[in-house]
Parts: sequence; C-alpha cells; structure tokens
Amino acid sequence: MSQKPSIPKGTRDFTPDVLLKRNYIFDTIKRTFNRFGFLPLETPAMENLSTLTGKYGEEGDQLLFKVLNSGDFLKDVDSSEKDYKKVIPKISEKGLRYDLTIPFARYVVMHRNEIVFPFKRYQIQPVWRADRPQKGRYREFYQCDADVIGSESLLYEAELLLIYDEVFTALQLPVQIKMNNRKILQGLSEVIGQPDKLTDITVAIDKLDKIGKEGVQKELQMRKVSEQGIRQIMQYLNLPFEQLETFMHGSEAGKKGMAEIREVQAFLSQTPLKNQLVIDLTLARGLNYYTGCIFEVQAMGVQMGSIGGGGRYDNLTGSFGISGMSGVGISFGAERIYDVLEELQLFPDNRSAGVQLLFACFDKEAQLFAMPLLQQVRQAGISAEIYPEPAKMKKQLEYADRKKINHVAIIGSDEIATSTLTVKNLQNGEQQKLNIQALIGYLSKAINLTAV
Amino acid sequence: MSQKPSIPKGTRDFTPDVLLKRNYIFDTIKRTFNRFGFLPLETPAMENLSTLTGKYGEEGDQLLFKVLNSGDFLKDVDSSEKDYKKVIPKISEKGLRYDLTIPFARYVVMHRNEIVFPFKRYQIQPVWRADRPQKGRYREFYQCDADVIGSESLLYEAELLLIYDEVFTALQLPVQIKMNNRKILQGLSEVIGQPDKLTDITVAIDKLDKIGKEGVQKELQMRKVSEQGIRQIMQYLNLPFEQLETFMHGSEAGKKGMAEIREVQAFLSQTPLKNQLVIDLTLARGLNYYTGCIFEVQAMGVQMGSIGGGGRYDNLTGSFGISGMSGVGISFGAERIYDVLEELQLFPDNRSAGVQLLFACFDKEAQLFAMPLLQQVRQAGISAEIYPEPAKMKKQLEYADRKKINHVAIIGSDEIATSTLTVKNLQNGEQQKLNIQALIGYLSKAINLTAV
Repeated sequence: MSQKPSIPKGTRDFTPDVLLKRNYIFDTIKRTFNRFGFLPLETPAMENLSTLTGKYGEEGDQLLFKVLNSGDFLKDVDSSEKDYKKVIPKISEKGLRYDLTIPFARYVVMHRNEIVFPFKRYQIQPVWRADRPQKGRYREFYQCDADVIGSESLLYEAELLLIYDEVFTALQLPVQIKMNNRKILQGLSEVIGQPDKLTDITVAIDKLDKIGKEGVQKELQMRKVSEQGIRQIMQYLNLPFEQLETFMHGSEAGKKGMAEIREVQAFLSQTPLKNQLVIDLTLARGLNYYTGCIFEVQAMGVQMGSIGGGGRYDNLTGSFGISGMSGVGISFGAERIYDVLEELQLFPDNRSAGVQLLFACFDKEAQLFAMPLLQQVRQAGISAEIYPEPAKMKKQLEYADRKKINHVAIIGSDEIATSTLTVKNLQNGEQQKLNIQALIGYLSKAINLTAV
Repeated sequence: MSQKPSIPKGTRDFTPDVLLKRNYIFDTIKRTFNRFGFLPLETPAMENLSTLTGKYGEEGDQLLFKVLNSGDFLKDVDSSEKDYKKVIPKISEKGLRYDLTIPFARYVVMHRNEIVFPFKRYQIQPVWRADRPQKGRYREFYQCDADVIGSESLLYEAELLLIYDEVFTALQLPVQIKMNNRKILQGLSEVIGQPDKLTDITVAIDKLDKIGKEGVQKELQMRKVSEQGIRQIMQYLNLPFEQLETFMHGSEAGKKGMAEIREVQAFLSQTPLKNQLVIDLTLARGLNYYTGCIFEVQAMGVQMGSIGGGGRYDNLTGSFGISGMSGVGISFGAERIYDVLEELQLFPDNRSAGVQLLFACFDKEAQLFAMPLLQQVRQAGISAEIYPEPAKMKKQLEYADRKKINHVAIIGSDEIATSTLTVKNLQNGEQQKLNIQALIGYLSKAINLTAV
C-alpha cells in the first residue's frame, strides 16, 4: 500500500530553519504585546458555520473551508437537490476559522459578563481560506492581531502606534506608519454634498496606489460622483493635513476626525516614535468596518504591500446582537514581514538559535564519559547533543557541519585521562583544549556574540 | 440578524488566565527539547485524506474530520448513492490532522533526501478527533511529541528519559517513569510456545491496570492462549527484571530486549535521574507500532492515567513505501499535565506572568505626564498599562484589582510637581513614593520574587 505522499496545495510544512525565523518574528511581537499589557487569547480552529457565514461577504462565504458532519451526513439530504450551496447546511455545520476578528467578536459576546473592560487581547493563530494559491498567498497562514475593546479613549490609538514602532524597531526594519481617520473621509463626502457616496469614495481612494489619480477619477465617475465632487476630491487628495481645516469647514464629522488625529498626536508628543509617522489623507483601508482612526505600515526600502494595518471600529459585535462596543486594533502581516526580513537579510544568524555543541566520541567509553558533561552544558542553558554512535570522526564532524552546529567537543582516551575536551570551532577551524567549566563559559560568550 | 453565538462541542476558547498556565507547560517542554538538540517542526492542519485514511484503524477513519471540497462538490456524486462512506471520497479530499506521528512520517518521506539523519524534531500542535466529547476528552487538543529518526542507537532512549526527567523536575511534579521492551513481550510469547499470540498477549497485559491479574487471565483464555502459557504469563507478571534471565533463556528476542534495557541503564549510570525510573515488565503500551524500548510516565500523588509515553519503532514510514527507518520518540500528555498541576496547585503565581503595573491618572495632564514613564517601564521588560480615561480613582483601582495587576502608580498634580509616583501594592496595601528609576528597580525585584 505504498503511495507518494504530498500536502494539500496552498499549505506548507515549516522546517526547523524556517520556524526559527518565524518564531523570531512572533516572539518579538508577543514580547511587545505583553509589555503593553495585552494578554493572549486562543479560539478553536473550527467555528460553527452560523458564526462565520455572512460575515465576509459572498466571496468570503465561498472561501470558507467547511467541515463535513460526522456520521451519516447524508440522512437529511434530498438527493434530487443539485445546488451544492443548498446542500452545504445539511451536511456541514462547522467551518475553519477565516480570520481572528469574528472569533474574537464571538468570544467577547459569549463572555461579556465575565470580561474586565477595556479588554486587551492579542491572538496569533493560523486561519484558512480556500483561495487560489499563488506566490505569497496560502490557504493556511498566520494572522497576528491585538485589539482593545470597550473603550473609546484615543490613548489606545497612541498605544497601538507605539507597539508598531517598538516591534519594527526591535526587528531592525525601518517602516513608515500612515494614519488617517474614516470620519475625515465621511467629512469629504459631506463637503462635496454626496454623503450617500461615502462607500464609493472610500473604495475609489483605496485604489489610489494601484491605479493612480486618473484611475481614481474614472472610478468616481463610474460610481456616479458629481463632476464638481470629483474636482473637490482631487483637490483633497493633494491637501496636506495642516491645510485641511478650511476644507472641512462645513462638516462636523470631518472636524471630529481631525480632532481625533490631533489627540493621538498629543498623546505621542511626549514619546516620539523612532519610525516615521505620517498623516496620509489618501489612506482608506478598503471596505471594512472602520469608523475612526485607521493605520497602515509600509516597509522602507522594499517593494511590498502593507505589512500591518488596523483602526477603530464601533460595531464589532453588532452581528451577534450586541451593539455599541467600540474597539481599536492592529494586525501584523507576519507572512509578508518574513519575506521583507528575508529580502533585506535582517534575520539574526540562525546558528545562535539552533544547536550549539556536538559531543563527538571515539568509542563507547568516551560516550559514557560524555553523558554527564552533556547534561552540565544543557543545564547552563546551551543546546547540545551527542552523536549517537562512536562513528568515524569525519562522519561526526560532517553531521555537525550539515546541521550547522558551531562547535564540536571531541572525546577520546586522552581527553578522558586529562578531563579536558578538544573543542573545535567549525566556523573558523580553531581548536582548543578546555575543561567543562571553561567550555561552558566559552560557549555562553560565543552564543551572545552571534545573537547580536 | 442577531444570534446567540456558541462554539462547536468538544472545543474550547483559551482565556489569557488559562493560556498563561498552558504556556508555562509548553515553554518548559520546548526549552528542554531545545537544550537536547531537538528542533521544531510544524505541519499543516489539513492533510490529504490519502495520507490519513487507513492509518488509525477503522475507528480512526470514522473519527477523522473531513473537509468539504471547495466549489461544486456535488458534480461527481451519484445522487442515488445512499452510503455516506462511499460518498466521502467524492466530496472530500482533505482531513484535519488526527495526530502528529503520521504527518511526521509523511514529512520524513517527502524530504528524506534533504534531511540530515539522525533527524531530531519536536512538534507541539493541535489535533482534531470527532470523538464523543466528555470530561477531559476534547475534539481539539494539543499533542506534544519529540522523535529521533534514522538511528538505532539506544543512547537516544537514554536521552529521551533524561528529557522526561528534566521537564517534570522543572515543573516540580514528581513522577515515576516506567520502562519495558517490546522484545521482552515477544520473548514471553516465544517462551510459552505461542509466538503467534504476541498481539493478544500485549493487548491483555496492557489492560492489567484496569482489570487486574484475574481479568488478564480471562482475557488470555478468551484469546485462546494455552492454560500452560497463561500460567507462565502469570509467573512473568510477578517477576522482577533481575530474575528474568532464566525465564527468557530460550528466546533470542527476550534476551535482546533485556540487553537493550541494560544498555539504556548503562548510558544513564553516569547521570542518575532525579525521578524514579523503574523497569516494569507489565508495561505494554497498547496496540501500536513499538518494537523496542517503551516508556510511560505516571504522576505521583494523584489518580490520573499516564501523562507521557513513547518508545522505539522500526517502521514509521512503511505505510508510505519507505521501510527500515528506525526511530524513537516520546510524547507529553499536555492536557493531563495541566489537570495534574492544577490539582496539586503546582502552577506558579499567575500574577508574575500578567500585567505588573497600572498607571492611574487623575486628569489628562497626568496622562500625558505618564506616557514617557510608561514606555520606560516597558523598556525595562515590565508589562505595564495605563487606564485609558482619567476616571474616578476607585474605578481605576477596581480595574487593576479585577485584572490582577499587582501595582498601581497614581499620578496627580503633586506627583507631576515632584516627579515622583505614588505606588500602591494592591496585594498588601502598602504605599510608597518612588521616582521612575526606583519604581523600575522595585518592580523588577517584585516580579523575580513572585516568579520563584
């Protein structure tokens, strides 16, 4: 019954090499979340389809992975039914998590009586989408979100921007952080006298990066925005934030949006960001649930879409019957951050995260001699292993080399007699004789050096 | 469109409180794996059903969660087909991971030409089983495995036992580690002259804990083991390892099994375990693929099934057409370990893992004053937050209390004028005035104290 195994398209195995790098990103983000008082939450991979369906638009419903009911799932199915969409609810009641936002909203609604608000949580888990796989797009990928729910304070907007700043500084990746406010876009639609066109305007402006100003103009025409309105929108797109006051004169929403941005700036005035923060009036953040400040993060020095985004929303839990819960959140595009760090060669040397020392023994007696030394090295927090056989030394060194282990401690009868180890540095070929204490001191130093 | 949301039965949300404890377990295990030179691997949640089906017996096939194909899954289905089992392959080609062993075997086979053998990997990921949920049994739960594949050296058996010893010592949970060898059970079947009954004998002995010796006797009768054979098996069950020699006189397999155990003991002779290691000839480890040494871990002082188990296997990848790959592995029963630590109150104080400090401000000015101080505290590695509104002090303190934040730094006009903070310890009510440097020193010390 042999077969050539494979994995489903759009999914990946993460090898140790890749995982060490991915964990470097996730650990940096988690550490920052924790310091900012965000605590972890995890939700099940499967949610009831009633929780997921209708939350991501018609296309999203199509892209949900549905899980077949257990047992005889056919028993309620009318076999004359040919429309698979009508059959789904009969044979499947669970689906795989499509994002982290809806499960979070579901969690908040279910536990709203125990939760201490404002509730600050972060969540780093895989999500699944039956998208057509292509370069950089997977059917299983990680999302990485932090949200505060249950407070309207703009202090949290400032805190989340500080988190972006901290994380990308720690990753040594210079970024530009953009901020805008959805109320300003609402103001724009009011100023041009077409408040009903807010969504159309948002969608059109959102495409600016891709289609340019002319494209936006065409898009707005197509979406029946008046010629006069389009002229004003074009004027708006060229306006710096400092000159927006007069433009927004007639719109309460517009003025509110500006005031919100200024308040966030005030909170940040005492703790300037290490990265560039720009108010970008052309930032729109697509067709989603944002209602206040919106953010987007761009890596400097590479061609790559945004590596982070977020904003304030006012009705996260509305679809579950609980309205009036304001929240604000950010997410990190971990998969893209990985690609950027790879491209810019910003990952720290992997060798410092892997195995540091191999004990290579000439014979069985040497192996027995090595065992307690091995434990001492490990107790000092150093990753170490022993080659399992007293094989030819060449073979043992080759193993260390292929596994990128930096140091080998060679043990034979001489070493046993003198209670010293012959330690070889495989990177520079240097060899020295050390006792176990000296070896531990030497390795601890070496690891710290390469970890920088 | 409101609805009362819920989650699928047998699944769980992990709240921050619970996750901090779970991560304490996983982090302890991961740290130990890493020190022993095991590196992480992660495989996709979904595997092809062709990879999973037939690997877990007929019952296992039933318990696989199957994922519905995307798009019009009905198009190949004969609507007159009433047998749902025959319909499954037409509408589903992927399933959720049922354990970590088969995906690991699949990975090894797919990548056997790049992998450096012996290959040491660990894997900590959720698995899914459509089991009937009950107390302590979930449809989504974590498995936690470490394996070495590609070497027959018994040094690895010793290493894996050391890992158990290290982890449970670090968790401060005293355990008994049992070891036996499947070749000894094979020897037993040979000694009684019924080598074809090896599986029956293994299954019967495996039930000893549950049904007692009389039960085993009945089971063996039922399974057509000869009366004389049963008498010998009963004698075997009372035998200490030291007296097995004569009993196994006629069996090469039996003698090999004993020699293997002695070799593992020899490797451990220089590094005695902190926990009790016993050779338990009645250990059988159920109906699985083990062929050499087998292990099981029992927590002391609680009534609970095994919290860990493993052993040597010779044909992990055989079902994928690659035979002759010997490996040895262990797993940690993380869900049960959680329950044991909870029952014995062995979790460290959660407070040291959560948020340490809340800045509580009397007014907006105090908030602005607090912002840079907050960042300084965080930069020192301390988890801190600020109450988002200058609300009544009582409300802010209540928030800290409900969120189990140990310390509150109170800031009003006095504190701003003197550049000191009024720091209140919510656990003992003590209050003191500190400048920011002193506060950081004080908190760092307090965290280390509670973390012990």
